[in-house]
Amino acid sequence: MKNRLTILTLFLIFIASFRLSAQELRKEVTWQEIDGVTVPIPPQVHPRLYLRSADVPALKERLKTPQAQKTLAAIKALGRDRTPEEEAAEPDHAYRYYHRMRGVTSRAELQALDYLVNGNKRQARRAITSMLDTLKTTNFGTKGDLSRASGAMLMVGAMVYDWCYDQMKESEKQAYIKEFIRIAGTMECGYPPRDNQPIAGHPSEWMIMRDMLSAGIAIYDEYPDMYNHVVKMMFKDYIPVRNYFYAGHNYHQGTSYVTVRFSNDLFGQWILDRMGTGPIYDSAQQFVLYDLIYRRRPDGQVLPAGDVTPPKRDARAAYTLPAMLASSYFKDEYLAYEFERNPDLQQQGGEVLDHCLIFDLLWRDYDLKAKAPDDLPLTRFSGTPFGWMIARTGWGANSVIVEMKINEQFVGNHQHMDGGSFQIYYKGPLAIDAGAYGGSSGGYNSPHNKNFFKRTIAHNSLLVYDPDEKFACWNYGGGDKTEYADNDGGQRMPGDRWQTCNVFSELLSPEYTMGKTLAHGFGPDINVPEYSYLKGDITQAYTQKVKEVKRSFVFLNLKNEQVPAALIVFDKVVSSNPDFKKYWLLHSIEEPAVNGNTFTVTRTKNGDTGMLQNSVLLPEADDAHIETVGGPGKEFWVFGTNYANDALPSRPDPANERGAWRVEVSPAKPAAENYFLNVIQVADNTCKQLNDVKRLDGERTVGVQIADRIVTFSKNSKPLAGRFSIKAEGNGTMKFVITDLKPGNWQIKKDGKIFIPGTEVKSDDGLLSFEGTAGVYEFRR
Amino acid sequence: MKNRLTILTLFLIFIASFRLSAQELRKEVTWQEIDGVTVPIPPQVHPRLYLRSADVPALKERLKTPQAQKTLAAIKALGRDRTPEEEAAEPDHAYRYYHRMRGVTSRAELQALDYLVNGNKRQARRAITSMLDTLKTTNFGTKGDLSRASGAMLMVGAMVYDWCYDQMKESEKQAYIKEFIRIAGTMECGYPPRDNQPIAGHPSEWMIMRDMLSAGIAIYDEYPDMYNHVVKMMFKDYIPVRNYFYAGHNYHQGTSYVTVRFSNDLFGQWILDRMGTGPIYDSAQQFVLYDLIYRRRPDGQVLPAGDVTPPKRDARAAYTLPAMLASSYFKDEYLAYEFERNPDLQQQGGEVLDHCLIFDLLWRDYDLKAKAPDDLPLTRFSGTPFGWMIARTGWGANSVIVEMKINEQFVGNHQHMDGGSFQIYYKGPLAIDAGAYGGSSGGYNSPHNKNFFKRTIAHNSLLVYDPDEKFACWNYGGGDKTEYADNDGGQRMPGDRWQTCNVFSELLSPEYTMGKTLAHGFGPDINVPEYSYLKGDITQAYTQKVKEVKRSFVFLNLKNEQVPAALIVFDKVVSSNPDFKKYWLLHSIEEPAVNGNTFTVTRTKNGDTGMLQNSVLLPEADDAHIETVGGPGKEFWVFGTNYANDALPSRPDPANERGAWRVEVSPAKPAAENYFLNVIQVADNTCKQLNDVKRLDGERTVGVQIADRIVTFSKNSKPLAGRFSIKAEGNGTMKFVITDLKPGNWQIKKDGKIFIPGTEVKSDDGLLSFEGTAGVYEFRR
Repeated sequence: MKNRLTILTLFLIFIASFRLSAQELRKEVTWQEIDGVTVPIPPQVHPRLYLRSADVPALKERLKTPQAQKTLAAIKALGRDRTPEEEAAEPDHAYRYYHRMRGVTSRAELQALDYLVNGNKRQARRAITSMLDTLKTTNFGTKGDLSRASGAMLMVGAMVYDWCYDQMKESEKQAYIKEFIRIAGTMECGYPPRDNQPIAGHPSEWMIMRDMLSAGIAIYDEYPDMYNHVVKMMFKDYIPVRNYFYAGHNYHQGTSYVTVRFSNDLFGQWILDRMGTGPIYDSAQQFVLYDLIYRRRPDGQVLPAGDVTPPKRDARAAYTLPAMLASSYFKDEYLAYEFERNPDLQQQGGEVLDHCLIFDLLWRDYDLKAKAPDDLPLTRFSGTPFGWMIARTGWGANSVIVEMKINEQFVGNHQHMDGGSFQIYYKGPLAIDAGAYGGSSGGYNSPHNKNFFKRTIAHNSLLVYDPDEKFACWNYGGGDKTEYADNDGGQRMPGDRWQTCNVFSELLSPEYTMGKTLAHGFGPDINVPEYSYLKGDITQAYTQKVKEVKRSFVFLNLKNEQVPAALIVFDKVVSSNPDFKKYWLLHSIEEPAVNGNTFTVTRTKNGDTGMLQNSVLLPEADDAHIETVGGPGKEFWVFGTNYANDALPSRPDPANERGAWRVEVSPAKPAAENYFLNVIQVADNTCKQLNDVKRLDGERTVGVQIADRIVTFSKNSKPLAGRFSIKAEGNGTMKFVITDLKPGNWQIKKDGKIFIPGTEVKSDDGLLSFEGTAGVYEFRR
Repeated sequence: MKNRLTILTLFLIFIASFRLSAQELRKEVTWQEIDGVTVPIPPQVHPRLYLRSADVPALKERLKTPQAQKTLAAIKALGRDRTPEEEAAEPDHAYRYYHRMRGVTSRAELQALDYLVNGNKRQARRAITSMLDTLKTTNFGTKGDLSRASGAMLMVGAMVYDWCYDQMKESEKQAYIKEFIRIAGTMECGYPPRDNQPIAGHPSEWMIMRDMLSAGIAIYDEYPDMYNHVVKMMFKDYIPVRNYFYAGHNYHQGTSYVTVRFSNDLFGQWILDRMGTGPIYDSAQQFVLYDLIYRRRPDGQVLPAGDVTPPKRDARAAYTLPAMLASSYFKDEYLAYEFERNPDLQQQGGEVLDHCLIFDLLWRDYDLKAKAPDDLPLTRFSGTPFGWMIARTGWGANSVIVEMKINEQFVGNHQHMDGGSFQIYYKGPLAIDAGAYGGSSGGYNSPHNKNFFKRTIAHNSLLVYDPDEKFACWNYGGGDKTEYADNDGGQRMPGDRWQTCNVFSELLSPEYTMGKTLAHGFGPDINVPEYSYLKGDITQAYTQKVKEVKRSFVFLNLKNEQVPAALIVFDKVVSSNPDFKKYWLLHSIEEPAVNGNTFTVTRTKNGDTGMLQNSVLLPEADDAHIETVGGPGKEFWVFGTNYANDALPSRPDPANERGAWRVEVSPAKPAAENYFLNVIQVADNTCKQLNDVKRLDGERTVGVQIADRIVTFSKNSKPLAGRFSIKAEGNGTMKFVITDLKPGNWQIKKDGKIFIPGTEVKSDDGLLSFEGTAGVYEFRR
């Protein structure tokens, strides 16, 4: 009995010590200063790439699960050679080449894994030799994103190197290292890697943060230089600027590039954490992808942002890879739900994920329960450096989704000059981001891209047209360089002749400052807000052709089935020259119908059935020029030139989401200072009766009355203090949103009597919301 | 019939035109630039002082009302000569002299009024000659606040001059002007007036803003200089700095000086508005006196601030004059209630009001209905430049009242170096501002005033004692100048050797910046808050002897009869030298009792029955040195010297509210960085059982558990982002206040499950409040 107890005790101690040592192993990474940057140093053990030896027993168990077996089978399937038909189906030659090589790399991964987990030396040998042969013949060329294919070869090579380390001959190690350096040298960043695009661009993808980092960790004992280069770049430049962005809980490269960009931020996090460093990024990283949750449309697509090709509509927009990496790392149930959205999950396909299946096997949290976003607040604000808000009326099929953007610090690259823009989705895309990245003339720096798609003119924002303005764009990058882009009347191209921001300190400088969020807030119930408010100053987004541009958005959830929501947009635009014409834009897929001071945009095709109706309350009726622009040959019209871009069979755009029309509202009379006040209601396109919309003119305020709501703004957009009154007419109880208030203590009288004895206006939103009946409301601060 | 209609029409037109002309008259004031300052120019008509001719008909009607008759009778009563006994009863010789003259001035006022309203020329003549005789003999001397008496002569002389203008001979006008200039020259500011104290000091009282302004308006046609001097000073210096203060809805000269200082701000407002300018100040002026509403104790006194003599307790602290001027000007019902608090209102006595009765007659809104503060929010925050908060549990007899102060921009003069201090009142003053302005050794710049009363050591704040620190104070003003004041270990004396701030731009400079409010908020219901939170950085209030001083207050309304409230005070104090001893202070009237790491302050006399008990949670028990200081001969102890100040018969202090004791909490071991965490509960002194108080130590937080509340702070006082957890034990639902959070989107998990999917922390308060049961709460930003 005593013996048995002792054995049990020893066993428990053994188990405990094993668990302890797993923790200890994680911690044995030391940190050193290299050239003034403190970086982690790889531990002197293998494996250390993607996992540590302490992780192996759990991995072995894990491989027995049905989920892992499925993934293993998928990798195995990739391990076969490709048919000529499959080869031909891939239009990108680098990827065609890479796919051809995927057979051998997939096999090598499985072989290395077999040795890692089961100690199968024969498999190790196979992996070592086949991968070395492959590396020696690897040659994707040196242009731009071909680096992605080169990098994947480094990654698999590194895996073999690290996992089969003790089975490699010294000469093989040296041969691997030689090939790693050679291949790295063919990549866009070169070798030693240039640290010249740490914020956006191809080096901010796989090549630095996954591939060269992986190879560097594998070969560190024999050749520390590669790791040292990469890790120094990361800790000096990549991580600080990303932590700055993460604090805003969003990303700057658009909905298409989030996969290749943000995924690799997560790769850096995973790789170094698994090496033993613990988290290297601010944990705000967890919430970056929440943006996708909020921009998810009922049809499975997302409201687009940045350089993006319109969706195929039959497939859901899947963010499988970043959602897997983020949800598993942060144990985030809502992101697990985003991961599970991938309709291809069963067959484990999806272009991006192919070369990442091994990470699904290694890192994905199989036990994490997905959670639908149903209990998330319906409005979400992304603060500095973004100033973006998405407001929804629900998560179901008939949700209204509105995006509102200010833009504060601007990166460029795949980011658009869209400060002040909005999008509206209800039973189809109604107010859209126009243009497309794919198509007959899409692509980076193409005429369509640089003259229209990226520019303010393609967004629901404001133009101020100085006929003499020049848009120098020589440094924008890509293949189709020109000295100038067309004059769209829009926002400036920051940096020297439109250069993507590559230095964190410059990002914070006036050059890359495009605006400032002045106020934001939603309520009264933050989970189901009746109002969602965003105001920004976007003066700095323009050149000196403007003196002041401020835009306020108030999105109203009207809680009404017929007319579920309205978006109020109030603008102050002061140009430096009264003759510079101002344009208020709203882009659409179908042709808008103008009727007096209102216009209507309807969706009638592709199963979409929504519509919006906009009432132009300012400029005054006699000063408001409302014009439609678009249709065949003028879809992407830039003051005299159409920058055409048609859908291609390989990139279909069934619902023509790139758009073909816009409405331009302009003041007819020249003036330096102009105001726009627009009220956009959404409804089903069968709706016969929308709400009356009334402008409320006060001495110091201008406002809107619609349904049971009253919303006011400061007439000149400056914060209101002192005293002012508004007069509300109408029946029953109305809901008031009074914006542009100076923070502090306020008192409200109604019809001369104390109505709200004292309340405090916050600096974040600068507003008061309350309910009341008709009367004269006097506000005193 | 037709005729009758015509007559009626004509009559209506006449009435309408009359009303119109009253408005027009108000508006005919023109504005001109004098030396770069735009100022209003008096209209070329009389009367224009205190009213215009359009106001006369209404005044005539008004004089018939019982209220006006009472006031008229009071002025008439003052018009008799004083008895020798009355003369002897006035200790201040200037005021004795003035009171002697009050007979003739009161008579002159009534005579001038009789001419103004009834055209009684004989009365005008009497007023003109008697007032001229009086002016010629007026000689109050030239010292300091004797200007107040001189100024009152200007005021009455101006009234006679303006109201009886067309009855005056040219020679009389010249004689008046000569005397006005002569008397003005005897005033502290001299003539032409020196514009050297536009923020605080005697010129910021009657002499500029009421008296010289009044005389200047009266004689403007014949002698514009006096008006031009004054109005330029006002519009250049006085008004801008006051508007800056008013935005914070408070005043900087303490509860005693609000009457002579703020009343005169209101006089300037009334006088110029009545002349026809409309409001000259920001309407935030209305809310300055709300501070008094909030600091009102159930016994009718107010929580003291600044240079103030403890109350007589049998009389209510009356702010009759400013409350009349402000409530009538702004039509403010709550301030009308403050006006009606004056117990002397029936007999129209009160020293201050004597010479202002005429304004009650002219300006007071007899129709304004007073409103008790019962429906005002129980907590009030005064923002920049103050950073002050008062939180109450109610408006009734058993209310707890807590004052919390940060101090941002510091004026000086009657303001105290009390950044970070607090006061607590419950059934008597418990934690008090110690010292007194009146008394055997009070008064401006007296030893008691400069070494103790004004200094941090006399307040419930923090000392950091550098034995070598010197407090140079030569420029503080007043009669008892010394080169240095004693070293109290407290906050610095701003300005060159402690000079009151006299320049607006300097007020905003680092020299006069004593701190910064970092966060404030109260809720969840702002009308009856459960928590009231204020945090500030008061590092700048000290010299370089400290590196960092931050204080957080959380006042909890426990909604419990036995223990109605608690105040949590959390401090971070970093000294530049670990040997500088730190002191956490709490002043009291009666002797505190120390018991382990708690101490108790009880009120047992003068009808007071409250007590407080403080639990010292930091410093740790083994490092907390808790000492009582005070008692006979040590009441106002400053490291070795007692700066005594006993109550005088003329200024009794029946409850000894100047205090006699304090508790000093100090870390025993020398350290640069120290934290204080104190939890002060209040109860009736018969209460046997207070709440248990528990410190909650988290990895990144420190907190307090008391009753059903959990309050946490960032351990190092820096904003929390990323992730952290707190563990809450206990039964039932608890109310959490989690402070020191970085603004933005947060998510809370409880025991590993989503608890709050998403919520937004505001920048104003940086906190989350919610309810929940025991468990581990994880916060993620």
